[in-house]
Amino acid sequence: MITSSQNPKLKLARALLGRPKERRAAGAFVAEGVRLVEEAALSGWPFRFVLHTEALSERGEALIEKLKTKNVDCETVDERLLQSLSDTGNTQGIIAILDYSLFPVPPILDFVLIPDQIRDPGNLGMLLRTAAAAGVQAVLIPPETTDAFAPKVVRAGMGAHFRLPIHAMEWEEIRRISESAKLKVWLADMEGRSCWQADLRAPLALIVGGEAEGASAQASKLADEQLCVPMPGRVESLNAGVAGAVLMFEVVRQRS
Amino acid sequence: MITSSQNPKLKLARALLGRPKERRAAGAFVAEGVRLVEEAALSGWPFRFVLHTEALSERGEALIEKLKTKNVDCETVDERLLQSLSDTGNTQGIIAILDYSLFPVPPILDFVLIPDQIRDPGNLGMLLRTAAAAGVQAVLIPPETTDAFAPKVVRAGMGAHFRLPIHAMEWEEIRRISESAKLKVWLADMEGRSCWQADLRAPLALIVGGEAEGASAQASKLADEQLCVPMPGRVESLNAGVAGAVLMFEVVRQRS
Repeated sequence: MITSSQNPKLKLARALLGRPKERRAAGAFVAEGVRLVEEAALSGWPFRFVLHTEALSERGEALIEKLKTKNVDCETVDERLLQSLSDTGNTQGIIAILDYSLFPVPPILDFVLIPDQIRDPGNLGMLLRTAAAAGVQAVLIPPETTDAFAPKVVRAGMGAHFRLPIHAMEWEEIRRISESAKLKVWLADMEGRSCWQADLRAPLALIVGGEAEGASAQASKLADEQLCVPMPGRVESLNAGVAGAVLMFEVVRQRS
Repeated sequence: MITSSQNPKLKLARALLGRPKERRAAGAFVAEGVRLVEEAALSGWPFRFVLHTEALSERGEALIEKLKTKNVDCETVDERLLQSLSDTGNTQGIIAILDYSLFPVPPILDFVLIPDQIRDPGNLGMLLRTAAAAGVQAVLIPPETTDAFAPKVVRAGMGAHFRLPIHAMEWEEIRRISESAKLKVWLADMEGRSCWQADLRAPLALIVGGEAEGASAQASKLADEQLCVPMPGRVESLNAGVAGAVLMFEVVRQRS
């Protein structure tokens, strides 16, 4: 059992739960809690190792047994040490250190999400979860958006990270992908065309901007046209995760 | 300037930021931050009093000036005392203590939201914000859902509280209102009919259930039919706030 806070596995986990640059340098990230680690296992994701407390729920114990049969390195750790790692204390006694190994962006695309200037990890995680549900094929993350592999984003994503290609990249690369797949780029904007009047059946990328600043100059430059959710209630705006969800499922509706 | 933590106004504010029963007993709640207090003022909401720090942003100072011309009691308070009240420290130097005074439920209804077993304040606030945007006419809150006037719900509601009738009530009362307005009651459920196939133009109430437990027995009993957001991505579920948003805006689309 790991009982020292200086243990190298524990130190790696702590670093990966911190800054984006630590995750990028190690090429790894952390999933916390029984449900998320189950999702990672189900998806066949590459595990580095698992840390868990001795006492676990029945479901947690079954998960550890299953991981061991798959030769995943599972090590017990002192309960207080594990709790001290997590900002939520919501590990349920299990964390997995996972390879960054990403799905490639598919060469043929017709449904892409670009979350622009989303700073709130909960909002980004919600967008990723919704994107996975709506059958989005790839999520391209521009530099101004928060790190998609931060622990709060992974938690709010509820397994989206194990189903979707999620790639941080520069705007030039996003433009290159959009152009080569011949995507029409729509920017969610209150002044845009009604999503119920727009034809969303052709291959498209949808840029959903952050709440505080609206769309970035780069996003506006890339966009072919603007798209809005008409609001009878005349409130100032929708939550970015909500606006993105309504627009993504309008794409699904039109194509179904 | 208020400098004692035992000041009666400060004690009332502290109580109202705490338990639901304090809010119900006093018939009041708290809005924090310049933007929310502005919204309350714009809507003509009844103010009890405002507490603010001496140093304020320009926008904050303009707001206090405007409130004073409306004879709202505005009192300065020591900065650390004000900060100690708020769990987010996100007051921007201003909080308003507001009457509970609710809009009545309109006698003629065709669009009602019932958030069932929503425990997360952020999720409930997001549902209220979306409901205000979608032109919902009343939100009926059953007993199992978290208090809609808790500070985190008010914050996430982004002003919805000043636009929408939001009423906590027993299920019997919800049934009485639904029946007298002849509403068809739809329950959001993964096993339900596709929202794109269902006719949502007739007067309706939409029950959106919490994530953890799904719909309550009471909700299932009240519902006439179940309604789902079809998900091509085959994930386990959508966030309750997201599912509610997609369904509410599908109602708007069908009626527009």
